[in-house]
Amino acid sequence: MGGDFAPQNIVAGALDALRHASNRFDIILVGREDEIKKELEKHSINGLRFSIVNATEVVGMDESPTVALKQKKDSSITVGLTLHKEGKADAFISAGNTGAVMSASTIILGRAEGVSRPTIGTPFPTEKGPCLLLDAGANVDCKPQHLLEFGMMGSIYANYILGYDNPTVGLINIGEESTKGNEITLEAYNLLQKSKLNFIGNIEGRDILKGKANVIVCDGFVGNIVLKFAESVLGLLKAKFKDYTASNLLNKIWVGLMYRTLKKILKDFDYQEHGGVPLLGVNGISIIGHGGSTPKAIMNMILKAEDMLIKEVDRHIAEIMLVNKNERQ
Amino acid sequence: MGGDFAPQNIVAGALDALRHASNRFDIILVGREDEIKKELEKHSINGLRFSIVNATEVVGMDESPTVALKQKKDSSITVGLTLHKEGKADAFISAGNTGAVMSASTIILGRAEGVSRPTIGTPFPTEKGPCLLLDAGANVDCKPQHLLEFGMMGSIYANYILGYDNPTVGLINIGEESTKGNEITLEAYNLLQKSKLNFIGNIEGRDILKGKANVIVCDGFVGNIVLKFAESVLGLLKAKFKDYTASNLLNKIWVGLMYRTLKKILKDFDYQEHGGVPLLGVNGISIIGHGGSTPKAIMNMILKAEDMLIKEVDRHIAEIMLVNKNERQ
Repeated sequence: MGGDFAPQNIVAGALDALRHASNRFDIILVGREDEIKKELEKHSINGLRFSIVNATEVVGMDESPTVALKQKKDSSITVGLTLHKEGKADAFISAGNTGAVMSASTIILGRAEGVSRPTIGTPFPTEKGPCLLLDAGANVDCKPQHLLEFGMMGSIYANYILGYDNPTVGLINIGEESTKGNEITLEAYNLLQKSKLNFIGNIEGRDILKGKANVIVCDGFVGNIVLKFAESVLGLLKAKFKDYTASNLLNKIWVGLMYRTLKKILKDFDYQEHGGVPLLGVNGISIIGHGGSTPKAIMNMILKAEDMLIKEVDRHIAEIMLVNKNERQ
Repeated sequence: MGGDFAPQNIVAGALDALRHASNRFDIILVGREDEIKKELEKHSINGLRFSIVNATEVVGMDESPTVALKQKKDSSITVGLTLHKEGKADAFISAGNTGAVMSASTIILGRAEGVSRPTIGTPFPTEKGPCLLLDAGANVDCKPQHLLEFGMMGSIYANYILGYDNPTVGLINIGEESTKGNEITLEAYNLLQKSKLNFIGNIEGRDILKGKANVIVCDGFVGNIVLKFAESVLGLLKAKFKDYTASNLLNKIWVGLMYRTLKKILKDFDYQEHGGVPLLGVNGISIIGHGGSTPKAIMNMILKAEDMLIKEVDRHIAEIMLVNKNERQ
């Protein structure tokens, strides 16, 4: 029921995922049964393996997560995550209220041992393939130790899901030298340096898209601003193209001709392609999607969940974080 | 002598500025006289009003500002700023070591009364014309009061130089609600709210390019990362286009045809167009350029300095900061 286009986009995306994956998995659609059934009538569902679990309440996109989770015990978020917790589902995905999915995942699934703060990792396109930036907004005020943990969890993800062998880790900073930065990054630099990670030092804002590091570490304040800024770049480009085409007919024809080529080139910038972002550090798999997720984005989120399940990302994270915790003591 | 292409680009840009402005002003070229003279030989300088002041030392782009300023008393930065301080020049511009120009400007020109921290404001293109983001990297660890002052100085600049009447001021944050943010932004929100500025509240990363605010306030850590990230977007686009054209000949021809149109559309993203960024809050005019500044960027920096001089931006800032200081006491 989550997101700006629920349940239609969620249902459509789930069915697409089943078709795309030739029923490698079952999908449980969690939410208001009557609304979901009405939505299903629009589709051909013959042979697709899914079921419905009723959840009567919906957490609004603008609701306070803490209040919503306390008051709405029968929300699709709580019911879905509980299915995962109880082993009735192997993963959970949602395009709903980000804060609520994050909090509920942490509370219901629990933090893995040794994880101070679960973190949201978000892929960025770069000149050399995707990188993972974290934290992307789950943790606003961070301690240096948190940044180290983000680097560890991100490295596991970059290894198993993005396919980088011994992934490089960079710390977002205002200069390359180890003496640059604010209080938090100066100390985080030392922790990362001493760790077993493949730490390549500070990287600047301009290095993200260049693909200088496979894993990029920052606090959730910086990560959130950069992520949202990046998502808006396409919007400005579109507006500029619109202004340009409005100026005369020839320009309009010209841009029309360019459009398909541009779209192909800019495909990597489209968040629909990679679907949602994983919440790392909880006991389980929880993937959070954009509120405006299209069916394609939903399908990709489900396929990503399957990939994380097969690669046992959560188990690998739990193992390394436990080792790290024991070493610190 | 500053920047990656000194003195050639600086000399060329200065001469272009004199031609473009029909000698409305004189230019003093500060640096190694012999090198500058050699450079001048490449140009037709007939009738152009400039002079040379010799400075034997050069601050390297990677030198530590504090060390460089202490050891190199006869650097082009120190000599140039001293000319401005003594009234022999009305403004100072440099494409040199950013930290050194910033420190030297603050030390030699002095902070305006009531200014806790001088700040670098950088223009961003938006769907609705340029906005000013500050601080863009001068102040890494900020207190809420500093953010308020950035908003005040930025408003003056946005008013007189960008031409916005009663410019809107937004605080970069991870959500629109006043309850969102880290410790610093939560407190800064209150200060901005209580001020006389046209404060429109928090704005998110995605709102910058939409043009939601004329003046955008953040600490120098966030500002620096976002600025450098934004500057790198064109680089990734270029790389994507290159990959695409490499894939087959037809694509190559096609992108070749699009190139001029694209360049026109992306003009606003080109920092060469707006030249350098002003250091606000010092007693005088100090403009800092990109190390890789082209002659065009240098020319635009000089024209911007002239504009700031005519509009008396530094005087207006000093006045409002003094009033604010007295009201706080």
